[in-house]
Amino acid sequence: MNSSRFPIEIFSRGEYIAPDRTGYFHTNGIRIMKLYNGIEKLRFGTPEDGVPSRQMFVKPPRREAIEAMPQAANTPAPEAIRFTVTSRGCRLEIPLAPGEDIYGLGLNLKSLRHTGKKRTLRVNSDPATDTGDSHAPAPLYFSSAGYGVLIDTARYATFYCGGNELLDSGDDVPPDDPNRILLTEAELYAARKTSAPMVIDIPAAGGVDVYFFSGPTLLDAVRRYVLFCGGGAMPPEWGLGCWYRTCGTSDAAGVDAMSAELREKQIPCDVLGLEPGWQSKTYSCSFRWSQERFPEPEKLISKLRERGYHVNLWEHLFTHPTSPIYEDLKPYAGDFKVWKGLVPDLTLPPAAKIFADYHAKNFTSKGISSFKLDECDNSDFIASPWSFPECSQFPSGLDGETMHSMLGMLYMETITRASRQSGIRGYGSVRNAHAFAPPQPYVLYSDLYDHAEFIRGVTSCGFSGMLWTPELRHARSPEDYLRRLEAMVLSPQMLLNIWSMPHPPWRQLQQEKNIAGEFYPPEEQARLEEATRRILELRMQFIPYLYEAFAEYHDFGTPPFRALAMDYPDEPAMRGIDYAWMAGDRLLVVPFRAGMTELDMPLPPGEWFDFYTGECHRNHVMLRPAHDQLPILVRGAAVVPLAEPVLFVADKMKFHLKRKCFGINPRPAKLFADDGCSFAFENDSARYYGEVSAKGALPPQLCERYELID
Amino acid sequence: MNSSRFPIEIFSRGEYIAPDRTGYFHTNGIRIMKLYNGIEKLRFGTPEDGVPSRQMFVKPPRREAIEAMPQAANTPAPEAIRFTVTSRGCRLEIPLAPGEDIYGLGLNLKSLRHTGKKRTLRVNSDPATDTGDSHAPAPLYFSSAGYGVLIDTARYATFYCGGNELLDSGDDVPPDDPNRILLTEAELYAARKTSAPMVIDIPAAGGVDVYFFSGPTLLDAVRRYVLFCGGGAMPPEWGLGCWYRTCGTSDAAGVDAMSAELREKQIPCDVLGLEPGWQSKTYSCSFRWSQERFPEPEKLISKLRERGYHVNLWEHLFTHPTSPIYEDLKPYAGDFKVWKGLVPDLTLPPAAKIFADYHAKNFTSKGISSFKLDECDNSDFIASPWSFPECSQFPSGLDGETMHSMLGMLYMETITRASRQSGIRGYGSVRNAHAFAPPQPYVLYSDLYDHAEFIRGVTSCGFSGMLWTPELRHARSPEDYLRRLEAMVLSPQMLLNIWSMPHPPWRQLQQEKNIAGEFYPPEEQARLEEATRRILELRMQFIPYLYEAFAEYHDFGTPPFRALAMDYPDEPAMRGIDYAWMAGDRLLVVPFRAGMTELDMPLPPGEWFDFYTGECHRNHVMLRPAHDQLPILVRGAAVVPLAEPVLFVADKMKFHLKRKCFGINPRPAKLFADDGCSFAFENDSARYYGEVSAKGALPPQLCERYELID
Repeated sequence: MNSSRFPIEIFSRGEYIAPDRTGYFHTNGIRIMKLYNGIEKLRFGTPEDGVPSRQMFVKPPRREAIEAMPQAANTPAPEAIRFTVTSRGCRLEIPLAPGEDIYGLGLNLKSLRHTGKKRTLRVNSDPATDTGDSHAPAPLYFSSAGYGVLIDTARYATFYCGGNELLDSGDDVPPDDPNRILLTEAELYAARKTSAPMVIDIPAAGGVDVYFFSGPTLLDAVRRYVLFCGGGAMPPEWGLGCWYRTCGTSDAAGVDAMSAELREKQIPCDVLGLEPGWQSKTYSCSFRWSQERFPEPEKLISKLRERGYHVNLWEHLFTHPTSPIYEDLKPYAGDFKVWKGLVPDLTLPPAAKIFADYHAKNFTSKGISSFKLDECDNSDFIASPWSFPECSQFPSGLDGETMHSMLGMLYMETITRASRQSGIRGYGSVRNAHAFAPPQPYVLYSDLYDHAEFIRGVTSCGFSGMLWTPELRHARSPEDYLRRLEAMVLSPQMLLNIWSMPHPPWRQLQQEKNIAGEFYPPEEQARLEEATRRILELRMQFIPYLYEAFAEYHDFGTPPFRALAMDYPDEPAMRGIDYAWMAGDRLLVVPFRAGMTELDMPLPPGEWFDFYTGECHRNHVMLRPAHDQLPILVRGAAVVPLAEPVLFVADKMKFHLKRKCFGINPRPAKLFADDGCSFAFENDSARYYGEVSAKGALPPQLCERYELID
Repeated sequence: MNSSRFPIEIFSRGEYIAPDRTGYFHTNGIRIMKLYNGIEKLRFGTPEDGVPSRQMFVKPPRREAIEAMPQAANTPAPEAIRFTVTSRGCRLEIPLAPGEDIYGLGLNLKSLRHTGKKRTLRVNSDPATDTGDSHAPAPLYFSSAGYGVLIDTARYATFYCGGNELLDSGDDVPPDDPNRILLTEAELYAARKTSAPMVIDIPAAGGVDVYFFSGPTLLDAVRRYVLFCGGGAMPPEWGLGCWYRTCGTSDAAGVDAMSAELREKQIPCDVLGLEPGWQSKTYSCSFRWSQERFPEPEKLISKLRERGYHVNLWEHLFTHPTSPIYEDLKPYAGDFKVWKGLVPDLTLPPAAKIFADYHAKNFTSKGISSFKLDECDNSDFIASPWSFPECSQFPSGLDGETMHSMLGMLYMETITRASRQSGIRGYGSVRNAHAFAPPQPYVLYSDLYDHAEFIRGVTSCGFSGMLWTPELRHARSPEDYLRRLEAMVLSPQMLLNIWSMPHPPWRQLQQEKNIAGEFYPPEEQARLEEATRRILELRMQFIPYLYEAFAEYHDFGTPPFRALAMDYPDEPAMRGIDYAWMAGDRLLVVPFRAGMTELDMPLPPGEWFDFYTGECHRNHVMLRPAHDQLPILVRGAAVVPLAEPVLFVADKMKFHLKRKCFGINPRPAKLFADDGCSFAFENDSARYYGEVSAKGALPPQLCERYELID
């Protein structure tokens, strides 16, 4: 591979202290480069070319914010790391101390904590078991001891998280009871306590760069990683509103009618999504409007924009032979087809340019604000695999394995460039991500649907700077429906993905009956419609709060949605909680699932106030929410600013705020103000943070966008 | 790796026709060696050292039998094969013709037919999805077009079985209906018809040897493979009897009592298995008798042998520090522990010798006939992985990945050597196998338990010359119990694996109640006991028939248990049948599962006779068996020899035969006679085939072992 096709390895521009001529210190055969305050790069052997850090999706680190962080140097000692190269790849052994818990490795629906487990980072559309397979794996872990480690590889690496002892580790004769006979496989195969290291198995590579992120705390380590990647994503305000994906069979008239119905029913909605039927040909994609179903797309888009909607288009990047860009892309395509379409090699600037320019010219410049980037993961675990083989070859020299790891990242960056050409700060959906994901304004989703897994996804992916939506597609009962809606209120995206049903879900939740037009009795429809409206309005009330949390993500690297283990790694009871999360700096969300009637929720130290009643709890709280109520707790005495709900966020609109205050001497809340939709906020003079105190007026710099009405 | 440690690459001793000096023809950069009639070796690039064909478990091909087979040359043309090497390994593209169905790839519980699918051959104790993960994957496939292909690699290779089209394959604009919008994921991701080749992705290797097996028929191709591997396994007669594994908590008195109870109740049993508790220490294994539970093992073994039992011992090869062979093995161990034990590198002759000699001295020379070789697979898909990493290093130079693939084969061969030192023709249990499995006298098993999958296993593994037992461990109902027993009657092994319950299953099927001594009412116990006896007696009646089928396996390569697709690849209706199989040359078995009341079974061409009623069926048969009856059909007019059931097969005993005749002018049956237990049959003068006709006496050479009593 010709590495000059890639951006310069930007991390060699880091600030190193007293380096030798190569920019590296040498310790024990490892080359070490001090990049920034608390961030080091260790080079083992000779790394491959096709690694994540050399791709176009990598942004410059947010150096000033990193340098402003507390000093810390609590990563594992380089001299204790062992590195081996063989014909099948290379292996790292990084020591773990007793009691360390391991998090991260990308989106994980099956578990939050990886301690003692084996994880293989296979990109996979339908992970069936708790093995590391994921839509969005990432070679990146964080320890409860307060540091993070990024392995710069796009290989399907395996992480043995402290479960495998080395023969030379001593401790030969274990003190186990020699006489206990076990009668279940679960007992036989239960994990034993060990003194094992983290072992990382990287196929094919003869070496690898490893980035160490110091704390001192776990959250600090995550922040350092996010800032190193260029800071967190900054969605437009409308992206934090409510999303509705219309039925796959809808034509222009159907979309028009649905857009009118939502406004008429006063159901909040900022983004309408169109499914594959907008295109003349799918699977694979022509990227052309269907003349039959959408004969006048610009007219439809205008109408939707007039009604306050942003429009999102479904697509994947497998390009159908009838696509206008097929012939241009063909020289830059991988050697296997997917659904008869070509796979563009977006690591090559000409291919990315053809793809981005086409999208800019035909979509983002014509009123399309957002895209759903489907099927950029892989298909190991379904009956009919559809994606390209790991042994595919791409013109850049990348193979299918590395391409699968980075496909979502490349695709997001390409589409983001198209949006930016049209001045659109986008927010989209994507089904794959990897290392360096934080700055990309995309939310992960899945065709899977277990609600506990969907909730767990919010808790797991924050460690890797990824966003995930526990979207609603359908529900097996009204209770399930309400619980699934609620779980999104304080999540990255409030998405009603109703692609498989022509009518709104509150009329009928079951697909077949919905298609057949068999609706619930009118009073049940009205009840569900009203509950939907109230839950969506709750989301709309939180937009200023969430927007500020994203600004902190962008500027300071703090993930807006965090597992409790991230904020409280020293509390053993918090380390395994995969069913609740922190949203922003002061809200704890505990989504219920259908069938749950109560939960005795352990609480981190301090006072926690019930969001609805203001009741104060310590140590734990017994939750028994009604079916239409999301349990929310407020951390300590605090102000929570709530917006008057609107049906959609208009450009530069003014939010009307009420302050909800909890406890004695509540802490002020922060708000962030910019225009909410353009890239102007990248200029310091067009962005402001300000505080909302329990009493008194807003600071003047917030008044253009916010007004107190309490 | 020093290849001189391995047996000489025996296939270069093949008979080649007009070779150049290297023994190879050259075609298109591929080196081709004609080995035997219908067997060619193709060399692509530079193969690795640590491949299956170079290991000690490889036997000399049965050349004379291969040469006696029909001539055929119907394998894919070498010049149409494409081969590529990259840094991550190598890739083969082997053409497939339209309509070819693909079988093989080792034991597969999730599917019989691989056409269009992606299969990654990961060694795995708990395969959860239909992806090629298996206890016993094998890089070996057979086509319905009548040929087979063996890829000589121990890597976790991936086989894309015709589902992935190449970009340069033409056919750019598909004729699909461009307007059909689909509303389910199943439809969206359904397999499309393609003109795709078999694509094989071999990690790490820079080249590979490929063996082609011609037909003309699919069964012929399988036969050629089996003979190439040295012929099929030849179990002793007692191995084909009934097996009972005693409870894990049993001590010597418990085993003694169980052995007495089975005889007293007249339940046939040839082999009693002892679970981990026989050892002083497990997991990992000390390989020493527990002083506490088995203070006088030789006395117990004598008593069991006097009662006609063979004794089987459970073990795995992870060696505990307290084992007498631990220190001797330590220089030959891999660099990771498993359950605090070492992993011996059995590719190294000293390690194999230490292990085999110890077993010969302490076990096989002291009356132990058989072993259960547990956990030699791997543990990707369970909550607490226990085995060694794929990136492990072994002193021979092998890594963990290749060791996992070959661990079962190496282990079987090592134990077989110990048995052979003591003159014992063994038959054991094992949880991993790979290429070159056919001669190994071991039956695969699993901790999984879905009955449909257990039945499918019998149909799938025959293509790879493997044996599999749909063993009984427990049952959720008496119906489930009887159906599970029946499914084993005409399978490789009749195994009641009651390791988790202290009392026989007919007294109580549920583990907890069985442990607590809460039994069924006496009349239900009696009913289940009687049904058990009758089903086990049916097995005993088939021993001469099955023994002859194994002799044909050994001598001519015909698997004794075969999917209908193997015998009838040209019948489309037979190609997907994964719930019935041929046992021997004339019996078709259709095991029922709990909950099934009837089945309209499609039949291959010809007449098929109901084994019980003699009724003749063509094209199909409606089966409605009672809960205690296994549906069996007889192929064409034929004699089926049935033995008078015995409680166990004594050495050189005489079987009393009745002839069951079906149709007009029934074909004679074949029988095989030797001593049934030693290696004498390897000498032609100590073995005989003879025919049993519908009328008349037995040929004299059979009379020492068989007597007609009808």
